[in-house]
Amino acid sequence: MFHFTAIVTCLALAFYFFTSFQVGKARATFGVKAPAITGNPDFERMFRVQMNTLEWLPIFLPSLWLFAIYISDPIAAAIGVVWIAGRVLYMTGYSQAAEKRGRGFGIQALAAGVLWVGALVAIVTRLIHG
Amino acid sequence: MFHFTAIVTCLALAFYFFTSFQVGKARATFGVKAPAITGNPDFERMFRVQMNTLEWLPIFLPSLWLFAIYISDPIAAAIGVVWIAGRVLYMTGYSQAAEKRGRGFGIQALAAGVLWVGALVAIVTRLIHG
Amino acid sequence: MFHFTAIVTCLALAFYFFTSFQVGKARATFGVKAPAITGNPDFERMFRVQMNTLEWLPIFLPSLWLFAIYISDPIAAAIGVVWIAGRVLYMTGYSQAAEKRGRGFGIQALAAGVLWVGALVAIVTRLIHG
Repeated sequence: MFHFTAIVTCLALAFYFFTSFQVGKARATFGVKAPAITGNPDFERMFRVQMNTLEWLPIFLPSLWLFAIYISDPIAAAIGVVWIAGRVLYMTGYSQAAEKRGRGFGIQALAAGVLWVGALVAIVTRLIHG
Repeated sequence: MFHFTAIVTCLALAFYFFTSFQVGKARATFGVKAPAITGNPDFERMFRVQMNTLEWLPIFLPSLWLFAIYISDPIAAAIGVVWIAGRVLYMTGYSQAAEKRGRGFGIQALAAGVLWVGALVAIVTRLIHG
Repeated sequence: MFHFTAIVTCLALAFYFFTSFQVGKARATFGVKAPAITGNPDFERMFRVQMNTLEWLPIFLPSLWLFAIYISDPIAAAIGVVWIAGRVLYMTGYSQAAEKRGRGFGIQALAAGVLWVGALVAIVTRLIHG
């Protein structure tokens, strides 16, 4: 079983849900009524935090699980925690200014990249060596 | 095997595809040419229905499957059906007016929340009790 | 095990990542500063390529895996390659003009549809025949 990866998946979803919730709050705070998604730069940055997290979830989650299945559950989970930490940093930076989103973005991209490369190498290796 | 959860997954994808299809139709009806995503409030509401469904899929699908694996296939599927019903209500409400999106949204959020909490509790319990 | 489907999943994620990367490049080329997502039609088309790929991933990936599990790993993977090819065509077409996005879109929609229908029929059949 993959208990650690399963827990990290739940945590990643909780963080993502939190970014959605922040967008809802930002709608009220900055007076951007649904269905509008533009009109106030502070709102737009929060909206982009959620969207960018959404954009990375389909890279992160399948890579996380393929890494867990083909390599190791606890190692996948540990890298997954790094991904979430990078995402939190990205959110706190971007919510202040667009220029402050770089470091967190880099960390989460690196974590997702390690999961993706690790999984791919492991799958190809397994395929070749039967 | 997880036949019921697998079927509900297919149905959820079909519903989501339907919301995408409605956006395509709304482009034609309200004269919003691609790649624009703004310009007409009726189009924008249909677009937001699709986007919001997309935004919830990465919360719903992993929670649904973790619930199915750690707790029960038919119970997960039954809650999944409630999620789809809430989503349908959200779509029919939001397509009429932004103010009418609340009830369906609440139902689907509750269903997804039950799946998420149930899965997390079950995973942690399994981890502790070996 | 599902080695072929796992590899195609990695390739699909790599392609999707590439579309995100192109949006970043287009931001610089066409001078659309984050968090803005509008303002230049060339940028908007690249942005829509990424978004549309993101929009189809939750239809494609679960259908791909259900097809692989319920029917066949290599056949699922082969159809998955067709999906990626359709996506590449969609990207190269749409990046030139909105009118040129149709053929690639149709190919990838057909591939995803075959995966979805095949999976659903196989699941229901398995459920009925025990």
